[in-house]
Amino acid sequence: MGNRIRIGIVGYGNLGRGVEHALALNPDMTLSGVFTRREPASVTTVDRNVSVRHIDDLAGLRDAIDVLILCGGSKSDLPVQTPALASAFSVVDSFDTHARIPEHFAAVDAAARAAGTTAIISTGWDPGLFSLQRLYGESILPQGETYTFWGRGLSQGHSDAIRRVPGVASGVQYTIPSEDAVARVRAGERPELSTREKHTRECFVVLEEGADADAVREAIVTMPDYFEPYDTTVKFITADELARDHAGVPHGGFVIRSGTTSNAVSQTVEFQLALESNPEFTASVLVAYARAAARLSASGDHGAKTPFDIAPGLLSPKSPEQLRAELL
Amino acid sequence: MGNRIRIGIVGYGNLGRGVEHALALNPDMTLSGVFTRREPASVTTVDRNVSVRHIDDLAGLRDAIDVLILCGGSKSDLPVQTPALASAFSVVDSFDTHARIPEHFAAVDAAARAAGTTAIISTGWDPGLFSLQRLYGESILPQGETYTFWGRGLSQGHSDAIRRVPGVASGVQYTIPSEDAVARVRAGERPELSTREKHTRECFVVLEEGADADAVREAIVTMPDYFEPYDTTVKFITADELARDHAGVPHGGFVIRSGTTSNAVSQTVEFQLALESNPEFTASVLVAYARAAARLSASGDHGAKTPFDIAPGLLSPKSPEQLRAELL
Repeated sequence: MGNRIRIGIVGYGNLGRGVEHALALNPDMTLSGVFTRREPASVTTVDRNVSVRHIDDLAGLRDAIDVLILCGGSKSDLPVQTPALASAFSVVDSFDTHARIPEHFAAVDAAARAAGTTAIISTGWDPGLFSLQRLYGESILPQGETYTFWGRGLSQGHSDAIRRVPGVASGVQYTIPSEDAVARVRAGERPELSTREKHTRECFVVLEEGADADAVREAIVTMPDYFEPYDTTVKFITADELARDHAGVPHGGFVIRSGTTSNAVSQTVEFQLALESNPEFTASVLVAYARAAARLSASGDHGAKTPFDIAPGLLSPKSPEQLRAELL
Repeated sequence: MGNRIRIGIVGYGNLGRGVEHALALNPDMTLSGVFTRREPASVTTVDRNVSVRHIDDLAGLRDAIDVLILCGGSKSDLPVQTPALASAFSVVDSFDTHARIPEHFAAVDAAARAAGTTAIISTGWDPGLFSLQRLYGESILPQGETYTFWGRGLSQGHSDAIRRVPGVASGVQYTIPSEDAVARVRAGERPELSTREKHTRECFVVLEEGADADAVREAIVTMPDYFEPYDTTVKFITADELARDHAGVPHGGFVIRSGTTSNAVSQTVEFQLALESNPEFTASVLVAYARAAARLSASGDHGAKTPFDIAPGLLSPKSPEQLRAELL
């Protein structure tokens, strides 16, 4: 790739900011601009020299951008934005509503094929890198079980649920994999694990003035789907403690494939992420897949793709010769 | 794939036997035969009904076999066999002499392109799965360091070296990653580690009658390249203990990428294998890549490939739709 890959960031929250950081570490790429639905002047990028424009301005920039990295949410942004933008640009997203991936893929594929663009969806780490490990694991060890554990990590959805409880001023929730369950899986036991046995949930809550702590705790731990199926602990802290100790967005987890190759011969494959910043890591994955999208698009390989379709070498700035000599 | 993929095994030692075991777990494949340089009647397969023939008989079987899985050694077998057989068959191997991969690739690529076959080299786990993790790690976290640790595992080369020491009747050697070094890497320290700091070596030795234990120990621990650069322990055991406690071929290890995404934000990606049988696991990887070779060959994508070139989805018997719905 003689010329640098020209990237546009669509949406500038934590994920978009993470993409800006990641692009700075990839000298074969350049940031053409940030595109937002907000008033552009209200968006403050890490590098103040970055061009911030309204998303509607993208219409005239088809020849100025190689790949758009879509940083909106999976609930309402990406189902609309990815197909719409794929009809003019090659794109990558981190669409993460597992159950709706087939319909998202179909919508994006139709748009990308009609337009002759390349769209890689559901990059990131789950879906994304964790999915790849599940695939490698069961393809290599067909006789076995795959286990995915999440955490220790901040769950945005569960934190939001806490904050909707009457009497709660603010709060965060961490998902924690059960050490005992992980140890049993690693040991090759292949246990059947209930939801309650796999993860616990830990909540740090700031009460509104005069709120009843016991009532808040009860409302949280009995909340259906979110907390009732888990062993949940609730700790009350001050707003200062929340700001001081819980400002980060850590996450991670494990994918473990435990299998048997011949009679009683046990084999275990484990993949583990320990992330100090979930959005910055997800952004780093998006950027690597943007490189693959640019290459596939340039070679005429169009339509929707997922990480399952992307040869690993396409993610690296190194040539195939270099990769074979240095990394194989 | 309506019809089953027809596989031939070339070479029947531990690895070839492992491939036979692995094929039994993959119902979309069938074993057409084992091909050997030995007297076929002297080879005993796991399933006695398997056809065992001389390797020279392959000449007439071009239309009867989809992929050959090459199970010879990297030192003298594969440099000759892989290019020779790729000129008539699609093949996979686990060529593992890292420094000679570029020349092996070139020789195989020339043969495969000329013949219109597909040849995937250096599958297995290192090179192979570990290489993939090194690639994903540095592509996603370009600012960081990658660490590979091997073990706890039996090293064939080092066991052979022990057995050549005068006074040694038999013995095995285990490579052991330093717990302290692994812990420092996991913690994101990114240490510079000397050879001695990364791994230790543990030898279990059966002495010949009348041999001088101290002299044997000294000869082992001072052996250049093999043991001198490491902290090596030598334990003397009986032939019965060797047979009872050291008959397995365990191995494994870790690939850890420790990186930074923005200022002081640390991210760690770890891949770990714990294998009770190194040859059976390597065989399982070969079989999954044989599936990819059959598909690429059928689609006209010929020449030499490595795991870096293989889209992960090609390893699975599931369709792309199934993979997206079930594993993404």
